[in-house]
Amino acid sequence: MTTSPEPYDLTTPSPGRLTAIYRVNATAATIDARAQGIAVEQSVEMPLDAVTNPAILSDIVGKVTGITQVHDDLYDVSIDLAVATTGLEAGQLFNMLFGNTSIHADVTLKDAIFPDSVLSAFGGPHHGITGLRERLRVHKRALTCSALKPQGSSAAELATLAGAMARGGIDLIKDDHGLADQAYSPFAERVARIGEAVRTARAADGRRTAYFPSLSGNLDQLREQVALARAEGLDGVLIAPMVTGVAAFHTIARENPDMAIMTHPSMAGASRIAPSLLLGKLFRMLGSDATVFPNHGGRFGYPPAECRALADAARFPLGGCRPAIPVPAGGMTLDRVPEMLDFYGQDVVVLVGGGLLSAGARITTETQAFANAVATYHAA
Amino acid sequence: MTTSPEPYDLTTPSPGRLTAIYRVNATAATIDARAQGIAVEQSVEMPLDAVTNPAILSDIVGKVTGITQVHDDLYDVSIDLAVATTGLEAGQLFNMLFGNTSIHADVTLKDAIFPDSVLSAFGGPHHGITGLRERLRVHKRALTCSALKPQGSSAAELATLAGAMARGGIDLIKDDHGLADQAYSPFAERVARIGEAVRTARAADGRRTAYFPSLSGNLDQLREQVALARAEGLDGVLIAPMVTGVAAFHTIARENPDMAIMTHPSMAGASRIAPSLLLGKLFRMLGSDATVFPNHGGRFGYPPAECRALADAARFPLGGCRPAIPVPAGGMTLDRVPEMLDFYGQDVVVLVGGGLLSAGARITTETQAFANAVATYHAA
Repeated sequence: MTTSPEPYDLTTPSPGRLTAIYRVNATAATIDARAQGIAVEQSVEMPLDAVTNPAILSDIVGKVTGITQVHDDLYDVSIDLAVATTGLEAGQLFNMLFGNTSIHADVTLKDAIFPDSVLSAFGGPHHGITGLRERLRVHKRALTCSALKPQGSSAAELATLAGAMARGGIDLIKDDHGLADQAYSPFAERVARIGEAVRTARAADGRRTAYFPSLSGNLDQLREQVALARAEGLDGVLIAPMVTGVAAFHTIARENPDMAIMTHPSMAGASRIAPSLLLGKLFRMLGSDATVFPNHGGRFGYPPAECRALADAARFPLGGCRPAIPVPAGGMTLDRVPEMLDFYGQDVVVLVGGGLLSAGARITTETQAFANAVATYHAA
Repeated sequence: MTTSPEPYDLTTPSPGRLTAIYRVNATAATIDARAQGIAVEQSVEMPLDAVTNPAILSDIVGKVTGITQVHDDLYDVSIDLAVATTGLEAGQLFNMLFGNTSIHADVTLKDAIFPDSVLSAFGGPHHGITGLRERLRVHKRALTCSALKPQGSSAAELATLAGAMARGGIDLIKDDHGLADQAYSPFAERVARIGEAVRTARAADGRRTAYFPSLSGNLDQLREQVALARAEGLDGVLIAPMVTGVAAFHTIARENPDMAIMTHPSMAGASRIAPSLLLGKLFRMLGSDATVFPNHGGRFGYPPAECRALADAARFPLGGCRPAIPVPAGGMTLDRVPEMLDFYGQDVVVLVGGGLLSAGARITTETQAFANAVATYHAA
């Protein structure tokens, strides 16, 4: 369907090693030293002539394995790092990939290549595209999704909105990522009311609308919220890993194999870590079944090529990790549905949030139009 | 001691409101619309004409309260946000300050001003500068610190190194932030061996060297590690909030009022959030007693003015929050000690890591020289 982006052509590292790829602003005269500097910063972080243990010099110090000129003063640097330094823990993985180097303004983390042993240790999505489709009982066409807003609304108001969208035949409703456990709409009350509204709305046609509430807080609170969601009969949640911390996200994913997980890019600050790596590959590796990202041409600035690379990173073969479904979003409107389905194909969740909410009292009708536009597209 | 940076001259927001300040690349023709766009993105995140509840329009939607031209196509935009949207939870606070906007390449989060009620809800450092000085029994001069490296070393090797530094009379030894719970140096064994080595080394002179081990993992693991550290008689830890997640960091800080907390800037990607805000004010507000940051003229690129603003943000009055002590680091050497003490004054921890380790077998002597340089500076 799409051409493979360059990183997928790279050789998979041997077990025990991973490859981080940095895009570096430097000159031809400085790039060799700069690349070596990153390799040291992301491993032992001290002068090499003060490292006396030969095993550390050979096994732990990062190794520059390739420097490729992108253009003029821009280079891609491949660095081989020891898997042992990550302890196979999510936070420490990010720490070793980009910890101190994230502070250097001349570098972005462009990609990372992992051996299968690392991918299987982190585990990837429990459900992936196939599992999500089975739960939503939609096997071929693209999936539809909207978001509950605005924050400040009461649980009852959000439930009314969710019921109206569900009657319009949408597949998936997620909380706005800004909905947390605020006084005006506490998590427990919100989940109970919206869960009931959505079930009631679909009782008539026997079809299904899934509701994914947004989790927030520390690990204790995340666990309580998952328990509340499960008690309400929900089978999926929304989480923003860069808000909760990747360690908490990964823990929730691994502890709840029955829950589908959609990730949100909030706080991704994505110009410093390539969106295709962070939101596509890394969130998938840690267990995202569905990854939300800002589509090109919306409120956010990802170019089409980056969106393509992100969707590829979510869906392309990645060790034993199930494919995750891309969820392009961020200011999408109904009139863009055909173009988005052209671009992403049918293994996609089309998320229209504010664009549906603008319909006001006509929300159910507008949702029907959205659902129909997606349902009829691939049949056409 | 230093001139107050501009943000401290701003009026403190009323209870119930906080002020976020964004630095935005835009033109005179576009800045008004762009500022309004950020205000909506960081609050209700939907078209305002679809918001029907008047209380949400008046209380929840972000309000642009000021636009100041910095130069040419660069503006500072002040936006008033509702405290209620944060739920007074650390992750959600970051989500509301910079969540989706972090994805926009034209914006950095420059500062945030909180009412006293928010500052006291988050709590700030338990010990602060005074408490740290009491524990270390150093009441006037600057404090000295070094780091245990390289990773890949065994617990026994790191303990030998720590003992040598302690005999040299250093105040504080921290783990390298890359030391986690890896197979080659498991946390429990490392803490036990280093704790013992440091105690033994100072038994002769009756003085004190504190050892702060680096915490990593999810909240369960962080709690286990704090318990191990406490069992070993340690009274402080190192944590990288952007690696563990700010929610986990804040939870650990609040649950352990007896432990001093030093923060590390790893993964701070600080060009998108002003270092003075993130590492100075926000980490302090969440409970950092001592905030590590890359000093100017070292391996990292913060200019002197940003270092000054960061040290000010850590030490200046901030509601009821105790002052946190600045820990300039990142490639520092002994010959820079006088200049750093000139720049930061005496309420500072001087951290020399690799610069000490390069001394090899002369580590105790070199540490003594470091300790003496700091001890004699203000006496001179």
